[in-house]
Amino acid sequence: MTYPTALGASSKDAITLLGHDLADDVMGKVGFGELAFWLATQRRPTPGETRVFEAVLAALADHGFTPTAIVTRLTHLSAPDSVQGALAAGLLGGGSRFLGVTEDCGRFLHDHLPVERPTTDDGWDAVALEIVTAQRAAKRFVPGLGHHVHKDGDPRTPRLFTLAAEEGLTGPHLRLFAAIGRVHPQVLGRTLPLNGAGVCGAALADLGLPLELLRGFALLARTAGLIGQLAEELRHPVANDIFLSVDLHNRSVDPDPYQPEGDLR
Amino acid sequence: MTYPTALGASSKDAITLLGHDLADDVMGKVGFGELAFWLATQRRPTPGETRVFEAVLAALADHGFTPTAIVTRLTHLSAPDSVQGALAAGLLGGGSRFLGVTEDCGRFLHDHLPVERPTTDDGWDAVALEIVTAQRAAKRFVPGLGHHVHKDGDPRTPRLFTLAAEEGLTGPHLRLFAAIGRVHPQVLGRTLPLNGAGVCGAALADLGLPLELLRGFALLARTAGLIGQLAEELRHPVANDIFLSVDLHNRSVDPDPYQPEGDLR
Amino acid sequence: MTYPTALGASSKDAITLLGHDLADDVMGKVGFGELAFWLATQRRPTPGETRVFEAVLAALADHGFTPTAIVTRLTHLSAPDSVQGALAAGLLGGGSRFLGVTEDCGRFLHDHLPVERPTTDDGWDAVALEIVTAQRAAKRFVPGLGHHVHKDGDPRTPRLFTLAAEEGLTGPHLRLFAAIGRVHPQVLGRTLPLNGAGVCGAALADLGLPLELLRGFALLARTAGLIGQLAEELRHPVANDIFLSVDLHNRSVDPDPYQPEGDLR
Amino acid sequence: MTYPTALGASSKDAITLLGHDLADDVMGKVGFGELAFWLATQRRPTPGETRVFEAVLAALADHGFTPTAIVTRLTHLSAPDSVQGALAAGLLGGGSRFLGVTEDCGRFLHDHLPVERPTTDDGWDAVALEIVTAQRAAKRFVPGLGHHVHKDGDPRTPRLFTLAAEEGLTGPHLRLFAAIGRVHPQVLGRTLPLNGAGVCGAALADLGLPLELLRGFALLARTAGLIGQLAEELRHPVANDIFLSVDLHNRSVDPDPYQPEGDLR
Repeated sequence: MTYPTALGASSKDAITLLGHDLADDVMGKVGFGELAFWLATQRRPTPGETRVFEAVLAALADHGFTPTAIVTRLTHLSAPDSVQGALAAGLLGGGSRFLGVTEDCGRFLHDHLPVERPTTDDGWDAVALEIVTAQRAAKRFVPGLGHHVHKDGDPRTPRLFTLAAEEGLTGPHLRLFAAIGRVHPQVLGRTLPLNGAGVCGAALADLGLPLELLRGFALLARTAGLIGQLAEELRHPVANDIFLSVDLHNRSVDPDPYQPEGDLR
Repeated sequence: MTYPTALGASSKDAITLLGHDLADDVMGKVGFGELAFWLATQRRPTPGETRVFEAVLAALADHGFTPTAIVTRLTHLSAPDSVQGALAAGLLGGGSRFLGVTEDCGRFLHDHLPVERPTTDDGWDAVALEIVTAQRAAKRFVPGLGHHVHKDGDPRTPRLFTLAAEEGLTGPHLRLFAAIGRVHPQVLGRTLPLNGAGVCGAALADLGLPLELLRGFALLARTAGLIGQLAEELRHPVANDIFLSVDLHNRSVDPDPYQPEGDLR
Repeated sequence: MTYPTALGASSKDAITLLGHDLADDVMGKVGFGELAFWLATQRRPTPGETRVFEAVLAALADHGFTPTAIVTRLTHLSAPDSVQGALAAGLLGGGSRFLGVTEDCGRFLHDHLPVERPTTDDGWDAVALEIVTAQRAAKRFVPGLGHHVHKDGDPRTPRLFTLAAEEGLTGPHLRLFAAIGRVHPQVLGRTLPLNGAGVCGAALADLGLPLELLRGFALLARTAGLIGQLAEELRHPVANDIFLSVDLHNRSVDPDPYQPEGDLR
Repeated sequence: MTYPTALGASSKDAITLLGHDLADDVMGKVGFGELAFWLATQRRPTPGETRVFEAVLAALADHGFTPTAIVTRLTHLSAPDSVQGALAAGLLGGGSRFLGVTEDCGRFLHDHLPVERPTTDDGWDAVALEIVTAQRAAKRFVPGLGHHVHKDGDPRTPRLFTLAAEEGLTGPHLRLFAAIGRVHPQVLGRTLPLNGAGVCGAALADLGLPLELLRGFALLARTAGLIGQLAEELRHPVANDIFLSVDLHNRSVDPDPYQPEGDLR
């Protein structure tokens, strides 16, 4: 039994990463975003791909006092001996609700790409119209549509479209996402913004990154953000105040015995 | 009660990160390594600092089938529904033994820096000689010295010294570490390599990053590596073979009742 | 804003848990399995319910060198400073594949319970026949059916049926599960065992525990098992041998560039 | 290479746990607390040992809105798809500060047990006096002494002393802890309560459980508590209100560039 890998390997005198000499060909020559892309796909991205990829990571790195940030700070408060535990705890919040939109949107667009790709915006609009109509009929949301704060538009969205266009990297996922942005008002009867998490998923899918791991890239971005949160917590701590704000407002109530649905006997 | 933060913030129309407009001033303009540095220190690094920082991240990103990589793959095998769980589980191995050398070395050097900084290599050698002699007398290791595979030299070490020198970023931690490399044979009676994890800790300390979080940067690097491991596992799975290689070689033995030290009654 | 809870609360002179005095009415009077049930449902179980519940926990506590056990041992090897990290890493493998059968089976049975409950085995057999036939037609598995090792029968299954019967706690989930065991051969053309994880899910559902948390009880049981694994690892370590058995058999291969499905330009 | 274990093992027809037949000899006959003790020590506890052990687990299971409880609820809010992630995140707070007192106290008592065990309270008082005096001289705390809420006495402490005495399980750790409670006022000049976490550590040490894993038992207890927190959150959710109470009170401030100690150039 052997375990093949194309990632890190070392012998007595050399270390390789992805088939390249780590010291001579990677260190000092490959940026960190570029390397993360390369590790995930085993192909080196172009400078344009790296730029779009890093723009996505920047968009997802930190959103202030999200549950993940609060969790990392509280875990550090409770277990200051383990930086890895505080970061891991924060990342465990990177699931279906908060970071999941990126993944859901990328997959949704991918699953709805037509076999024959339209060549005009009108063509994409027709595809989008059908999709949004079908979702509405099924009473299902369109991932990436709507934002509870940026109701008139998420500033990350036009910026990422522009960056992808500048680099010649506007692919079918971004095109379809843009079309959904144009046509949905005529189906839904109101105009919702294309949100930043969604456009990030579309851009990552257009970069050819594995759809199963779109959530992983959001988590990589967030790792940098959570280190920022920890660094700030170490210097200007708020976790204990957050804890007390909850604990001091707890209210003891009587137990409420759980009744399962239906008769069990 | 308010909770101050200089990290991410958003209003209806804008999103800021570190006091800058995220869409216009960060996305497309700030690389991911640069951003991670900025988030951790709340100051923007110079291009030279970014280059050295990203070289460190590259050095630590992936070392093949380490325990952390095996853990991420096995956790994904067992719980494929949770990418965040597989990554978090791998990061939890980033503790005192494997990733800890980076942190331990950075702290050790920092704690032993002389108040008066030498201006010559001879001066640093004298400081280092005293330190290594004291550690030996106390039967303690010098962090960053020795490697179980790269016995004649870890290729990452000279490379990182060179990169720091090219960028004018050789500070007291790297100088002291180099001096330890020069003088230890006369104390220990044999020549050990300065290892890559150790030089990374020295370089991160010279970049002015918070010592309490040196382990965090190793974890950030490793997050990219673990995504690479997961991506490879999805396409060329080995986790089930690893599991079976252990399970098929298990040998059932009789219980061995634990006896605490000393008499308890 | 207040945060109501019926769980732990304390004042200067007293601590209550679930509305009872912790020191006088819980400590020394309530077993740990009983307490876990009570915490999850906010109602105190009967002795019979506790006995069946603890039998389920025993059935799920440890299965030797599973991925979760290997993960806990490897994480401890890599980060011996953090017992909490080693346990948490192991629990993160408690997802859809390994521990998930318990939850899936409990939910599946619940979702397929007829509104009118049969009063005879023949009645349940008719219900089960319909369900198994429908699953087969949809090419879907029946959760809880089949075991890769115990091909002629999982010894936990008849034992748990017996225990539930002894305590008068055989409810509709166990009845339906038993019926599936009787009728499936005539649909599938071969006889598969009802597995232990499945019968545990049925028993937990019949105990009236929240279906959303069935996985949680498996994780509670496994926490005890993982502490056993750690305790054994501390005295008779094998994690380093496991690590080396993988690392020494790694084989460096060329990168295999990822090609996303479909054309992206 | 084989991997020996005395824990779970299975063959085609049987499953054993700790050398016993799981179905016939464990399920329905061994309580969960008893099993957890047995797994950790590979010896079956007596009924008295089980009673004291389960009293400790009850004492540590849940303390209301602690950081660990808040973390589990927030992680579930953010990633409702992963019960294992929510529980693991909560456990990661079980570190040196909150759950650590149990472990620290058990170890501290163990490290200070005299070789010759006193046979009278007066003898233990003399030992305790020396220890508390030495700690004070070294400006170090005595673990287990003091409580921020139960200033006049933690109700768990006398209860656990009583239970241990009832079962004939008062060993040297509990004796020394009691003596510290009696003599410390004459050294420190004020009377502090012996806290519940501390007495739990003393009791676990007297039960002969491995000192390296005392934190593990606190985590086992807390797992049951966190399942209770999740169950309550599912029915009476508060996590979103907690999140909003933090997020709505965030205050954006200017970055505060980090200055490392000392000159780096």
